[in-house]
Amino acid sequence: MANIVILGAGVMGTAFGFPLADTGQQVHLVGTHLDLDWINGIRATGIHPKLQVKLPKNITSYTHDQLGEVLTEQTDLIVLGVSSPGVNWAIQQLGQHLKKSIPILMLTKGLAAREGHLDILPAIVREGLAEHGFQDVPVGGVGGPCIAGELAARRDSSVVLAFSDQALLDKVFPLIAAPYYHARPSTDLIGLEACAALKNFYALAVGYAKGLLEKQGTAENGALMYNPASGLFTQAVAEMGYLIECMGGTQANVHGLPGIGDLYVTCQAGRNSRMGRLLGLGLSYREAKQNHMAADTIEGTDLALTIGPTIEALLDQGQLDPSRLPLAKAIIESICHNQLMSIPWTRFYAL
Amino acid sequence: MANIVILGAGVMGTAFGFPLADTGQQVHLVGTHLDLDWINGIRATGIHPKLQVKLPKNITSYTHDQLGEVLTEQTDLIVLGVSSPGVNWAIQQLGQHLKKSIPILMLTKGLAAREGHLDILPAIVREGLAEHGFQDVPVGGVGGPCIAGELAARRDSSVVLAFSDQALLDKVFPLIAAPYYHARPSTDLIGLEACAALKNFYALAVGYAKGLLEKQGTAENGALMYNPASGLFTQAVAEMGYLIECMGGTQANVHGLPGIGDLYVTCQAGRNSRMGRLLGLGLSYREAKQNHMAADTIEGTDLALTIGPTIEALLDQGQLDPSRLPLAKAIIESICHNQLMSIPWTRFYAL
Repeated sequence: MANIVILGAGVMGTAFGFPLADTGQQVHLVGTHLDLDWINGIRATGIHPKLQVKLPKNITSYTHDQLGEVLTEQTDLIVLGVSSPGVNWAIQQLGQHLKKSIPILMLTKGLAAREGHLDILPAIVREGLAEHGFQDVPVGGVGGPCIAGELAARRDSSVVLAFSDQALLDKVFPLIAAPYYHARPSTDLIGLEACAALKNFYALAVGYAKGLLEKQGTAENGALMYNPASGLFTQAVAEMGYLIECMGGTQANVHGLPGIGDLYVTCQAGRNSRMGRLLGLGLSYREAKQNHMAADTIEGTDLALTIGPTIEALLDQGQLDPSRLPLAKAIIESICHNQLMSIPWTRFYAL
Repeated sequence: MANIVILGAGVMGTAFGFPLADTGQQVHLVGTHLDLDWINGIRATGIHPKLQVKLPKNITSYTHDQLGEVLTEQTDLIVLGVSSPGVNWAIQQLGQHLKKSIPILMLTKGLAAREGHLDILPAIVREGLAEHGFQDVPVGGVGGPCIAGELAARRDSSVVLAFSDQALLDKVFPLIAAPYYHARPSTDLIGLEACAALKNFYALAVGYAKGLLEKQGTAENGALMYNPASGLFTQAVAEMGYLIECMGGTQANVHGLPGIGDLYVTCQAGRNSRMGRLLGLGLSYREAKQNHMAADTIEGTDLALTIGPTIEALLDQGQLDPSRLPLAKAIIESICHNQLMSIPWTRFYAL
């Protein structure tokens, strides 16, 4: 039985506790200061108010001010399930309360743009903790097509678990091996993390086809817009592959669960697809956001705003090849420069 | 202006005439003996009765008995758009009426199993015509996510055009370059053809998740079945990649439009998905076929019945690795042996 602390009691942080608990681990679920309603709800009813599932008995819940007492010498693994803007807060909290270096597994997804290049979040966490005196904390991640609500309902879910260090991978792997949670190991952390972030960005474009269909209408012969959607889906995978190659990741994750698998699920539903639909309807990003999704966190547009300027700079400097990223450019023009989105079909497939 | 004969006036044969006609080619659309209603309909109204779109003026239609007069010394390209069981009929017809060796472009998709291995249909056509005295007729193909009705409605459609011979590829390529028809060239004909066939086979499994959801119902927290569907989608791509590697094709087409692109569109709609749904509902293949889809041609199950025994033999002989094909085995057991389908999750992802 391992002793595991999950920081972040949102839907994904909590749902990830299920395979841990179901394989017999002792799980401490610590909410952030923003998760107080979730923790109170769990304490009152045993049910996560948003996830709407009863938590297994070996998940114990805590408020953020209890992190110091929960993190002990006996903690085997920390799971980071905060939102991506919460990563710096989490680094501060861990820096303050860690007693020793403990492996960290990140559920939080995103990319950082700094010093003119793109970085994965585990690198940010590792460096942040080093500044607090914890050198070389191993930070891994889990990714793939896994909607939290389905995981908590114990639907068969397939993911990739990645640590750069094979020995650590072998150690963490059995802790999550629940019968419905099908993980496969990978040492390609960059590929995993970059896929997990970029699939939200590219799902905006695939969702565009849905909006375009509503705008243009069904054709006289009943034709819909599956051909354009598939063309966009395929181009998205190709561009993810190129970006991840440039970042130092492998194609195995792009062509596996973290890439095409997660892009597939993201294109079926969710906020990124909904925003894409609004862009396809002919709205500008600002119009769509302000009038239709003002209260929503949209990971794909947040990522576009974070990495867009850096990608543009790398393209300008010739460090990225524009012929390989026409769809990324169209998305960035739409989100970062509020241009009406249009699809540069003739520039696709320079693979 | 090229002189092009399309043999087969079904929806795909006819729709492929649109990019040809719209780039100014002279198109002769010759129906098979089964297409008489379509040809009569086109002649009466100018509209293909099933495609429900008015044909461009430079498409002229003919009945099958006119093939001999339509195929001339001036014919630049023959497009084969018959159904896959019609390939042998087409070989006979062409063998009888060809005046010289003319390049053939195949829309017809499928795989043949003979002499203990899997073959692409262009190989069958090439050999068949050799028996009629036409040696080394160049046979290529076009594939990718392209629903015929959408192509005829001139929706943006993305495909791969493949001939083994680069010079021929360069010659045919401009003939189809309509503004809405985004082709990219490839010399990997095996990869293209195998993807086009196998995507129907694997779409059965992805569709299974939909039926399973209906059978098991939405979870107490509203959870659907996107996680399982994505896991199946990704496994399908991995297995297609392995089979195509064994057949001598490249991964570029698997990870491009013919593979993931066409699988994506096939999983959104269509008869293969509908059959998969019935299997997910818990019906045996025979029950599902006889009671619900008796009149339908289901390319994925037809292919399973064609190639299933050969794949099983190759697995038995150790020429295919069973750890790389657990989903194919599950599909074959369901279709060829009428077992209730179940998903071998724990055997997935041996990539």
